[in-house]
Amino acid sequence: MITKKQISDILKDYNTEDLAIATVCSHSSLQIFHGARKEGLKTIGICIGEPPRFYNAYPLAKPDEFISVDSYKNIPDIAPLLRQKNAIIIPHGSFVEYMGADKFLDLEVPTFGNRAVLNWESDRTKEREWLEGAGIHMPRLVEPEDIHGPVMVKYHGAKGGRGFFIAKNYEEFLENIDESEKYTVQEFIVGTRYYLHFFYSPLRQEGYKLSNGTLEMLSMDRRVESNADEIFRLGSPKELEKASVQPTYVVTGNIPLVARESLMPKIFSLGEQVVEESLKLFGGMIGSFCLETVFTDQLEIKVFEISARIVAGTNIYTNGSPYSDFIEEGLSTGKRISQEVKLAAEQEKLEVILS
Amino acid sequence: MITKKQISDILKDYNTEDLAIATVCSHSSLQIFHGARKEGLKTIGICIGEPPRFYNAYPLAKPDEFISVDSYKNIPDIAPLLRQKNAIIIPHGSFVEYMGADKFLDLEVPTFGNRAVLNWESDRTKEREWLEGAGIHMPRLVEPEDIHGPVMVKYHGAKGGRGFFIAKNYEEFLENIDESEKYTVQEFIVGTRYYLHFFYSPLRQEGYKLSNGTLEMLSMDRRVESNADEIFRLGSPKELEKASVQPTYVVTGNIPLVARESLMPKIFSLGEQVVEESLKLFGGMIGSFCLETVFTDQLEIKVFEISARIVAGTNIYTNGSPYSDFIEEGLSTGKRISQEVKLAAEQEKLEVILS
Amino acid sequence: MITKKQISDILKDYNTEDLAIATVCSHSSLQIFHGARKEGLKTIGICIGEPPRFYNAYPLAKPDEFISVDSYKNIPDIAPLLRQKNAIIIPHGSFVEYMGADKFLDLEVPTFGNRAVLNWESDRTKEREWLEGAGIHMPRLVEPEDIHGPVMVKYHGAKGGRGFFIAKNYEEFLENIDESEKYTVQEFIVGTRYYLHFFYSPLRQEGYKLSNGTLEMLSMDRRVESNADEIFRLGSPKELEKASVQPTYVVTGNIPLVARESLMPKIFSLGEQVVEESLKLFGGMIGSFCLETVFTDQLEIKVFEISARIVAGTNIYTNGSPYSDFIEEGLSTGKRISQEVKLAAEQEKLEVILS
Repeated sequence: MITKKQISDILKDYNTEDLAIATVCSHSSLQIFHGARKEGLKTIGICIGEPPRFYNAYPLAKPDEFISVDSYKNIPDIAPLLRQKNAIIIPHGSFVEYMGADKFLDLEVPTFGNRAVLNWESDRTKEREWLEGAGIHMPRLVEPEDIHGPVMVKYHGAKGGRGFFIAKNYEEFLENIDESEKYTVQEFIVGTRYYLHFFYSPLRQEGYKLSNGTLEMLSMDRRVESNADEIFRLGSPKELEKASVQPTYVVTGNIPLVARESLMPKIFSLGEQVVEESLKLFGGMIGSFCLETVFTDQLEIKVFEISARIVAGTNIYTNGSPYSDFIEEGLSTGKRISQEVKLAAEQEKLEVILS
Repeated sequence: MITKKQISDILKDYNTEDLAIATVCSHSSLQIFHGARKEGLKTIGICIGEPPRFYNAYPLAKPDEFISVDSYKNIPDIAPLLRQKNAIIIPHGSFVEYMGADKFLDLEVPTFGNRAVLNWESDRTKEREWLEGAGIHMPRLVEPEDIHGPVMVKYHGAKGGRGFFIAKNYEEFLENIDESEKYTVQEFIVGTRYYLHFFYSPLRQEGYKLSNGTLEMLSMDRRVESNADEIFRLGSPKELEKASVQPTYVVTGNIPLVARESLMPKIFSLGEQVVEESLKLFGGMIGSFCLETVFTDQLEIKVFEISARIVAGTNIYTNGSPYSDFIEEGLSTGKRISQEVKLAAEQEKLEVILS
Repeated sequence: MITKKQISDILKDYNTEDLAIATVCSHSSLQIFHGARKEGLKTIGICIGEPPRFYNAYPLAKPDEFISVDSYKNIPDIAPLLRQKNAIIIPHGSFVEYMGADKFLDLEVPTFGNRAVLNWESDRTKEREWLEGAGIHMPRLVEPEDIHGPVMVKYHGAKGGRGFFIAKNYEEFLENIDESEKYTVQEFIVGTRYYLHFFYSPLRQEGYKLSNGTLEMLSMDRRVESNADEIFRLGSPKELEKASVQPTYVVTGNIPLVARESLMPKIFSLGEQVVEESLKLFGGMIGSFCLETVFTDQLEIKVFEISARIVAGTNIYTNGSPYSDFIEEGLSTGKRISQEVKLAAEQEKLEVILS
């Protein structure tokens, strides 16, 4: 992984009055570019081959410039060009996935957030160590023979919402399990899903204060999962077993929602605990992150996963959310990121928020 | 209950050019404070112990001042302080619930809306008398032996979304009923839920006119109910009976929606009838109210409950809704409430909208 | 059908500096009037009998003027009056349905869009010819004996969301089919529904370019269908068969959503293909249109229907959408339509966008 020292050296050559926001043309890029433009920063879209035509339809979100690569794996080749343009990379889920974690960790371009978080987030065991260390309730891991209620069975090869099944008891587990594959069994939390979009700033000192910096909760969404969200129109999971249709959990989009206001203290506490623990474990998770949660009918909040960067659910709120509008009218996560970059540049603290 | 005369006397000592909007720090308080600030009114948050930290994250919705109590039951103790600050209380669902209806009715601080509505709304028989008197279709009450279609069975002790079950016929009723508890059986209206957010102004004369004042419909939402909204992923209600999982209906949040425009005349009629009947029965329900409805596939609207004050579903629309934006860009229910208070102060008619 | 020549002759007498936007008071009329007002155009609401009172509640969306008819079938009688007022009709789904397709096609008032599209859109065979000709994936038509997976069975008389059923296999088809009625059997695409709101401008040359003009994607929604969206609370489709409850698919409203950004190129391609094919087949589908789609868990997009004018799902976005805000802050489809009318008037090309 690239060191703090290396980034610091690169930044010495940057013209901090002419910074550019760069990201891969997918996931939440429209919002990232839109927010950067509003904040007066230059924008660079990294794409494969010809620039995607759809940006032409959205003039306020179209990057000032495109840089083309043959494959996202080759982004390291354009690192010198990006540095020359004073580029700061805003990583998103697709950025990391397309490029590959290893190459991403080594990329010699200043990147928003702390790249070290990737090691903690992508390894299920370390993620659990981090979150449970922060006092967060996660779904329990269960041994098959101890299944006494609904569980989610996840094959190790599972990717992108396929390769899961839900069992309500041990019998259903036995009926459905393919023992030739590795799997984990995890408590299935019954409730309603909320994806909470936070922002941790080590620079702002006014607001919801943490030991160092401040925490914001900008918005929340529920993912739209294909086909699980609509498959009930065909039949119950049990009835579908007999037909040739399997529930799958592939994210196709997002819908907006808000949470009961009485849960706000709990929501902020969760964000706070996760950030504080990250500060202890690996120097802190900086900028946008998302807690993927279930709100139970006991009004408990269980966290089943963390994403340590901007999530696509924020795309609903490109011009403000019911929460972010309480901070600044029309504030999106994309805009908030660019504000942080500008603030760091002004305070000559870019190395605090970049890695 | 405090009398009109007592409120009127209290108001005589108020400096109506320095009014403050006060409410309990929960439910829809962010929006109430945010709207009041936009209208230039002072704001007071009533909280237990230390002010909740999460307000610090939302500077545009943070009250100017907090007043702390040991328990919401002790709000009467701060009544003199509130009066001294020219405070007007905006009651919301949690306010009334936390404080207790009796104490709320006696509270010696001017309160937005007509407190008398509480007697009609909290008593199921009187609520039905009111709504059916207004010509509204409510779900029928059913005797168990007359169950010939889906019903909702509700135990008397039921609170906050638990202690219900749905039966499709008499057999299912018998299978599930716990005869040791008191219950009511009510027709289950099959359709889609819409929570309609109205505002009745006895002061504005321009708009959708009623016999006295005007009616607005500012927005609508659907409640997110845990676990009923997502439990179908586990199995059908029948299949779940065998497992240890019960559907529950605890509100955890809200999602936005809009209604077919051809239903607008019907929607406004419902609001109108309810207000007109309230004027006859108890001097009128003033300000925000919500009709909790089901739209059937015959495009009929059935009302299953009324909330006679701001509901949390309006929290989606803290900066305007697809409907309220047709009145004034960015109008929230919270802002609308403060507009009404200001209008009453200007017209020297505060006693008309307060009780 | 009225000819291009006739419309052209009518337009010769129009004062293009005093145009009025006219539509039937339903469906998406609030938004159409609201958008027209923002663009500084006059507005005319066509209604039956007295003007609907609910417009009084929404001053920014209330038409400047109402013209009353006894029945929407009699709109041709007010054609001279509409022409005298330089009116341009914005047709929406209810407009065409209430008036009747035949009368609509003959109406002697300039109408936004190409009326010829109606013949292609209302005839299932021609619609399929158009869309499949455009390279679009539609659900396959299936012979009953070839049912090997979920299908949607639709009786020919079916209207407004009733008269459908879903079968998972041939047995279920046989159990449910009423052979005394005509029906079609169509593959049931399992996934999540997205209704994509496009705008094709033959006049704008900057943006996502087509062979002639540009394409925009302004927003998307999911329809709320009564009772299918909530009937799972009662039981699975199988369990409900035994009770007296049938799933129905009547649209009662809409909820907002956004799509995975990586699908944007595919989304724009779909819109592009449909427009290009329409240009070949019948001179082009102009202005707003909607592709009714299902996103599968393979991230394929299947189109099950097209609406060739403004759809009610755009009513969610009366003050901008997460997408349209990238074009212009606060842009609704209603506003976009009026922009196109103004642009055509300025360029003296009204006959290009009207028919």
